[in-house]
Amino acid sequence: MSKGKFITFEGPEGAGKTTVIAEIYKRMQKEGIEGILTREPGGIRISEKIREVIHDNEYKEMDGMTEALLYAAARRQHLVERVLPALNEGKIVLCDRFIDSSLAYQGYARGLGMEDVMTINSFAIGETMPDVTIFFNITPEEGLQRIAKSGAREQNRLDNETLQFHQKVYEGYKLLLEQYPNRIISTDATLPLSEVTENVWKIISSQLISQENS
Amino acid sequence: MSKGKFITFEGPEGAGKTTVIAEIYKRMQKEGIEGILTREPGGIRISEKIREVIHDNEYKEMDGMTEALLYAAARRQHLVERVLPALNEGKIVLCDRFIDSSLAYQGYARGLGMEDVMTINSFAIGETMPDVTIFFNITPEEGLQRIAKSGAREQNRLDNETLQFHQKVYEGYKLLLEQYPNRIISTDATLPLSEVTENVWKIISSQLISQENS
Repeated sequence: MSKGKFITFEGPEGAGKTTVIAEIYKRMQKEGIEGILTREPGGIRISEKIREVIHDNEYKEMDGMTEALLYAAARRQHLVERVLPALNEGKIVLCDRFIDSSLAYQGYARGLGMEDVMTINSFAIGETMPDVTIFFNITPEEGLQRIAKSGAREQNRLDNETLQFHQKVYEGYKLLLEQYPNRIISTDATLPLSEVTENVWKIISSQLISQENS
Repeated sequence: MSKGKFITFEGPEGAGKTTVIAEIYKRMQKEGIEGILTREPGGIRISEKIREVIHDNEYKEMDGMTEALLYAAARRQHLVERVLPALNEGKIVLCDRFIDSSLAYQGYARGLGMEDVMTINSFAIGETMPDVTIFFNITPEEGLQRIAKSGAREQNRLDNETLQFHQKVYEGYKLLLEQYPNRIISTDATLPLSEVTENVWKIISSQLISQENS
């Protein structure tokens, strides 16, 4: 049975991920490549419910470890209901954020420890690590400016964190790039989004070709 | 700084735990022993919210690992907000169910593995294992009969599990008794509740005395 390819996208807030991935997905469809576009919680009702709890602005008292365990729970359900079935059908799965977000946000920025957060998540995801992860490289300053300019999105409990927090998230991602040089590929996200899309498409195409040859 | 004592109560559904613990707590108050009576989620709003998700009868599709991670998240928040502050003030904490429930229900009965569930929970509780755990020993058949007779409680997603599931929970508890012979003390819960209360009170009194002498 052919197994699909699991591609995840990571980066600071305001990196343009969502816009770019939507473009990539359109191109995939045009090219007749079978795939799905998803993001946690991905419309999975249990995961949506869990995300509501995580994002609730009221819950200022939420402990960092509680947050990490909730993310892992939501991830598990989304994986079981959505990601794994698609991969088992041989599809390409594009997923907006995955385990590296937990490692950078809770593991590094919240100071829980990347190793501990990895252990928690290994229960949630089992063997299903991404085949390739594209990191949208942009400093949090630039990313947050973009969000402020667009002003479109409602701010949640995590958006409201300090700039210092987002800087730590960025540092966390940099460490992950060093730790997983084969899996995580960095792309310059300060470029105009059309160029970013072009570059990401090139990375993904080369991955799909390498899959066909493997 | 004097540290309190953390006493947890475990057993199958319908074992009479809740009734007995309420009696024990009354006696403690009469004797002037400073303590709190709690149970997960213990009125902690984040944990209550998480428990709502776990117990929702609608969520038939919930994966066992999702469930285990959610319990650990709710446990963490309850521990941080309620149990640890009381213990740090030197109080006796009586807690209706704790980590052994997860080990017996998710670890053993759901087949996730006790060791894995212990690892997840070790992130939730850190070093805070119970000082003593009282196991209400009653077969699931007898326990479920008691619930059916009383008919008072609304059934949640876990109550509606099969008898076979509850038998596995019971087997799980038996394994825990073997694994933690020093921490877990079994009490005959088939006796009239007044006698169970008397026996549990004796166990707890001896624990409190041993604490004073230590």
